[in-house]
Amino acid sequence: MKAAILTIGDEILIGQITDTNSGWLARKMNDIGAEVVRMMSVADDIADIHRGFDQAFELADIVLVTGGLGPTKDDITKMAMSEYFDDELKFHQPSYDLIERMFNKRGIPLRDSHRVQCFLPSKATLIENNMGTAQGIWMEYKGKALLSMPGIPYEMKAIMKTGGGLEKIRTTFSSKAIAHRTILTAGEGETTIASLIESVESNLPDHIKLAFLPSLGRVRLRLSGLSDNQTKLEQEITLEVNKINELIPDLIFGYGNETLESAVGTLLKSKNLTIGTCESCTGGFLSHIISSVPGASAYYDGSIVSYSYTLKEKLLNVSSQTLNQEGAVSEATVREMVEGGLLQLNTDIVVSISGIAGPSGGTVEKPVGTIWLAVGNSFTTQTSKLQLGKNREKNIEYTAYYALNMVRKFVLHHY
Amino acid sequence: MKAAILTIGDEILIGQITDTNSGWLARKMNDIGAEVVRMMSVADDIADIHRGFDQAFELADIVLVTGGLGPTKDDITKMAMSEYFDDELKFHQPSYDLIERMFNKRGIPLRDSHRVQCFLPSKATLIENNMGTAQGIWMEYKGKALLSMPGIPYEMKAIMKTGGGLEKIRTTFSSKAIAHRTILTAGEGETTIASLIESVESNLPDHIKLAFLPSLGRVRLRLSGLSDNQTKLEQEITLEVNKINELIPDLIFGYGNETLESAVGTLLKSKNLTIGTCESCTGGFLSHIISSVPGASAYYDGSIVSYSYTLKEKLLNVSSQTLNQEGAVSEATVREMVEGGLLQLNTDIVVSISGIAGPSGGTVEKPVGTIWLAVGNSFTTQTSKLQLGKNREKNIEYTAYYALNMVRKFVLHHY
Repeated sequence: MKAAILTIGDEILIGQITDTNSGWLARKMNDIGAEVVRMMSVADDIADIHRGFDQAFELADIVLVTGGLGPTKDDITKMAMSEYFDDELKFHQPSYDLIERMFNKRGIPLRDSHRVQCFLPSKATLIENNMGTAQGIWMEYKGKALLSMPGIPYEMKAIMKTGGGLEKIRTTFSSKAIAHRTILTAGEGETTIASLIESVESNLPDHIKLAFLPSLGRVRLRLSGLSDNQTKLEQEITLEVNKINELIPDLIFGYGNETLESAVGTLLKSKNLTIGTCESCTGGFLSHIISSVPGASAYYDGSIVSYSYTLKEKLLNVSSQTLNQEGAVSEATVREMVEGGLLQLNTDIVVSISGIAGPSGGTVEKPVGTIWLAVGNSFTTQTSKLQLGKNREKNIEYTAYYALNMVRKFVLHHY
Repeated sequence: MKAAILTIGDEILIGQITDTNSGWLARKMNDIGAEVVRMMSVADDIADIHRGFDQAFELADIVLVTGGLGPTKDDITKMAMSEYFDDELKFHQPSYDLIERMFNKRGIPLRDSHRVQCFLPSKATLIENNMGTAQGIWMEYKGKALLSMPGIPYEMKAIMKTGGGLEKIRTTFSSKAIAHRTILTAGEGETTIASLIESVESNLPDHIKLAFLPSLGRVRLRLSGLSDNQTKLEQEITLEVNKINELIPDLIFGYGNETLESAVGTLLKSKNLTIGTCESCTGGFLSHIISSVPGASAYYDGSIVSYSYTLKEKLLNVSSQTLNQEGAVSEATVREMVEGGLLQLNTDIVVSISGIAGPSGGTVEKPVGTIWLAVGNSFTTQTSKLQLGKNREKNIEYTAYYALNMVRKFVLHHY
């Protein structure tokens, strides 16, 4: 099966928005064994959309379209589709009822534009969007198909996943057996991991591929196979997963769609431990990712973000002597932040961070990207120092995930 | 002048890399008055590259190509270009000398692959890349032109800027005047804003377009125009901006590339105010976005995330009576959180949030998505209640931006 991905929207062509939908869709299409042969961004213009449809259908069996399905006037995708497939837009009562129910629940009045939004191509199959008012529109034509979705990423993903869009594409076009397994690692970079598991990678069977998917502080290893026999394929992939597991057991924190934050959460819960954070340069981002896991209240009590010197002293009892002599970015400070945090937050474990996130604020001795971390309980504290680059956003994210991995190793070692 | 942007590389089509080059190039093309009419990503395959060239030249005067110019095997762009323009690849001694000088300076030995890299289309004009070994390749054909550059972002940018690629494009093609203006709003959704400014939108001149770009809790309004006269166009767009400004003054927090968090930061700094946050269900996300702005320490001191009942009592002095009688998700609780926060954080303003982020944890009286917020100083406190959906991630993000906008309005009203 071949796929094309078409993005509609002037905002992409003027560079105002970076298109992340296409990359996400490409990965999902890969997962079901489809080859993405083209990505395209076209203007909010019917003739240009039609030209894009032509070019996409010339190459692909399934065309995934994002953008241009909202309730405002610049959203002309539906009209372009209706014309292209020689169809007409008709008012679709069930869609209107759905929006009405959704809005009544929240006490928001419906507008005329929502009525307009319910005019849909009469031959379309609708795919549910449980995150918004514009449903996915599926149209088939000469053995090929087009699925149009809104451009808001979480709505598009809802249509593909919970709405069943991806499954519909798979069952419409493919019969081959597909298997995927993702190994989740933290603590080493892509290059190091590649050299550690080189013996596995170079001996993989032809129909099984390994991809490295790095993000800040974490690397995912994705094994994917395509074959005629599902059971055999699953066994083959399991074999490779086990080999990798033997080579880098300490780096692996989970499998599949788990995240480092959920894996650490599960670990804490299984040991009946609670955690709190005391952050400075990460400004609450570590607290945010820990509490982003549903049910985090079982092991997460709270945090103190002490951005200023004053609050480090007042809320965390960091001594003014330490702050004046060693500085806020020092091993002594993060140790005292853990001690103060254990008293204030009353948790079993506290993790603390203090550093210079950038882009400015560094000195010769402590350049931008210098970051101290500590993890401790009432018996022992471990510290670590990072020397990162000058990008504020990247430093904050990398540091928070590094801290989470320190917590993971601390718990595994001490409990 | 019309432009198309073509990205070559399998790594983009499988979703392993997000293409940020195209957005950057689009913004630069806009700056010189070019209209980007198409973006495309094609595979590392000569036939597919040729198809991409055809489709791009059908629409555009200038085609910008990135990717596929490095020293490895899959880099076949040069061959595809040579064939497409009916040219031949010839060894280009000056290019080789350039690489040799560059490498000698760093003491790196040259490899055969660098020799291969110096085979270039004979009719090409080369554009200097002072950040790497692959120069930009400019070819003209029937009054149109193609500029091929490596995919590594800083090399591509070097060719466009210091190498003079952008200037060459500008001087080669006579260009139409283009103007853009973005109005940033918070506080109302896309549909409401559309109806509030309907009189402006429906009376826009034909050559000026309005687009709505929504994200959680914020909507950007983008006006863009195309004309022969830059000065007149800028005036026309300014007129429309002023009309919109008159209709929705309270909703507008800024213009252009600003963010709500940076706008609020600038506002606080201009009034010499400091802020702290006391969060429950947002778990530090509000603190994170406030502190994500470089230089936030000028107005941001710190936060307390009191996720548990215990910490609400211990750190923020919320009374156990309030927690037991009204519950943690109540107006009384967020009011007391502000009072406790003002004492603990010692800031001029405190914003507090307590709610049920979901996906579970709701009751009949307080379903998932019920969220209370308060903003206050030592004189007065304002509260607000939200009733959102069940998506934890969305609820957290929406609430944090809603809170930021409450802060903005609070400061504008009281200071």
